[in-house]
Amino acid sequence: MTSVPKPSAPALGGVRPEVRATPAYPFTPVNAPFKLDQNESALDFPPALRKLAIERMMERDWNRYPDLHAESLQQKIGAYEGWDPAGVVVTPGSNVLIKLLMEMGGIGQRLLTVQPTFSVYELEAQMLGAQVTRVPLRADFGLDVEGLKRELAQGGPGVLSLIQPHAPTGFLDAESDLRAVVDAAGDDWIVVIDEAYHQFSGGDHRSLVRERGNRVSLRTFSKAWGLAGLRLGYALTGVELAANLQKLVSAFNVNALTQAVAEVALEHPDYVKARAEEVVWERERMLRELSGLKKLHAHPSQANFFLLRTPDADHAYRFLLERGLLVRRQDKLPMLGGCLRVSVGTKEQNDLLLSAVLELDAEE
Amino acid sequence: MTSVPKPSAPALGGVRPEVRATPAYPFTPVNAPFKLDQNESALDFPPALRKLAIERMMERDWNRYPDLHAESLQQKIGAYEGWDPAGVVVTPGSNVLIKLLMEMGGIGQRLLTVQPTFSVYELEAQMLGAQVTRVPLRADFGLDVEGLKRELAQGGPGVLSLIQPHAPTGFLDAESDLRAVVDAAGDDWIVVIDEAYHQFSGGDHRSLVRERGNRVSLRTFSKAWGLAGLRLGYALTGVELAANLQKLVSAFNVNALTQAVAEVALEHPDYVKARAEEVVWERERMLRELSGLKKLHAHPSQANFFLLRTPDADHAYRFLLERGLLVRRQDKLPMLGGCLRVSVGTKEQNDLLLSAVLELDAEE
Repeated sequence: MTSVPKPSAPALGGVRPEVRATPAYPFTPVNAPFKLDQNESALDFPPALRKLAIERMMERDWNRYPDLHAESLQQKIGAYEGWDPAGVVVTPGSNVLIKLLMEMGGIGQRLLTVQPTFSVYELEAQMLGAQVTRVPLRADFGLDVEGLKRELAQGGPGVLSLIQPHAPTGFLDAESDLRAVVDAAGDDWIVVIDEAYHQFSGGDHRSLVRERGNRVSLRTFSKAWGLAGLRLGYALTGVELAANLQKLVSAFNVNALTQAVAEVALEHPDYVKARAEEVVWERERMLRELSGLKKLHAHPSQANFFLLRTPDADHAYRFLLERGLLVRRQDKLPMLGGCLRVSVGTKEQNDLLLSAVLELDAEE
Repeated sequence: MTSVPKPSAPALGGVRPEVRATPAYPFTPVNAPFKLDQNESALDFPPALRKLAIERMMERDWNRYPDLHAESLQQKIGAYEGWDPAGVVVTPGSNVLIKLLMEMGGIGQRLLTVQPTFSVYELEAQMLGAQVTRVPLRADFGLDVEGLKRELAQGGPGVLSLIQPHAPTGFLDAESDLRAVVDAAGDDWIVVIDEAYHQFSGGDHRSLVRERGNRVSLRTFSKAWGLAGLRLGYALTGVELAANLQKLVSAFNVNALTQAVAEVALEHPDYVKARAEEVVWERERMLRELSGLKKLHAHPSQANFFLLRTPDADHAYRFLLERGLLVRRQDKLPMLGGCLRVSVGTKEQNDLLLSAVLELDAEE
């Protein structure tokens, strides 16, 4: 008779198997002088606006719950985007909206997405119990229109998620390709167009979203607005879809301080366009300077980052990190063998990156 | 042949029926000079700490994502609560944790709770597709231990949620009653003890939670800490349960400003105890002065609010509102016919409330 050791902790039979089986969000913080790993803005919120924001925070009651659905932000975002405020849903980060969309249309239903793509859609779908279908991108990272239409024709109900420009590739589809996919989605699909990076692409799909009440654009203050520390994202959608989505938003979800800062930002939005133009300028400069690489390859991009394909991602990652440059590995994703993702930084940071990459490319 | 009108908006077949069928969170904002409707602290975060918090905010990068799981707050909360930081899960409001616990253990499983209780557990369970079982409270608002044990014996998997002291009644169960229920829950239940109001009751169930890894205490900065505007809540639980719960927390969920304020609060926590004692003192004074009412009845409470039973809740609500006093109607809940919920305010606000209630009680 063998003795069976007792488990050291009680079984957690209440935890659904889908949650146990899902890995944690793949992010390990690394300290480095030059952070080019999270596609943040290299520049902080403008100091003058920061001062105004602090003043506004001081006017607010910190002991009182903020308004239920951040109504004043719904109004201001509606005015900024030319959108009915009743179709604006605001949350602490647009990744919260991804979760809520999966709660609304994913549980026991489908998620149709592309591959490779931003991992949060799939992770939430997996944990919440949606059946995930991934249609591989074309070799140029564009949408496989016919492949997606075939899957859509098999029917929902479910969520179709598309990122424009794509993450982590930076590819922007032709308007006609995107429209062909979106139009093929019947009323039993919720169609999500994630526009986190749209300010760097010139793309803007509000008119496509406006056409039908089952379409959603996701936007964020974390990229072009330079406010990733604030955690604020929003959905632009139809009024009926918004009302259902709003039920899933935890009450009083956007705190009073965040609201104060975002109000100030929305009252002074001019810096966003100017900075986005600067990022685009720098991105194109870098891609030009990296166009003649021997062993490495920089992929074109319409976002504030680009993919750098290397013969050995681990070596390249360490090589850059030794020079103080932190980038993000993407080489475990399908189609992205050897790839690192590089955020566009300040001119000085970009110069450092460029010379390091040229040095790496010239290695024996 | 009759003509069928076209629907004005496209059908939203992707929205799960459970979400469509669930009502929105029942809250309608009303302006009034004296807010006694949300169980907030009547006093704001101390001005000296506010100043320190602003200074700390100014030191932070607003353009950078905060740390993934608010690790510095996990450390500070762990130290404050005497809890392993790996068992601390921090979110923007503890109602987010209620959602995540339903995602973890509710979808396709069970929620066992009492009635009447805080509505968010049931609303999330309903939207996410958990089977909800409600065991009515005893007439004195205590737990029906045998009734709960019978339901637990029927098995999970699922979530058992209990609030201590209860909301919205303010009742605190005998430790032996709570233990009898909690101990009857097998390993296939996640046992949630919501301690949002524990500082006003003298109750503290950390030792009960610590005994088994499937137990969770929920706590908040919205009540005794006077920081409802900040939206910050946390779970204390076992390390393995915390790791699974953490997967469901959206990445970078607690923003940099909130982290700065909460750090300062946790470094200077003395005001919390002093204020909680003041609230208890005021609550007991009010309940004493209202002990001889003729038509109305003030229920005893161990929280920072109490129930006022009236012959006509609508009339009583308006009567108080006309005098600038905003309270919360609870009269539609089972067992709570005629009941209003009154938050304890400042001494001045409480005096106004007392004289208004005495006047109401003396009406013809």
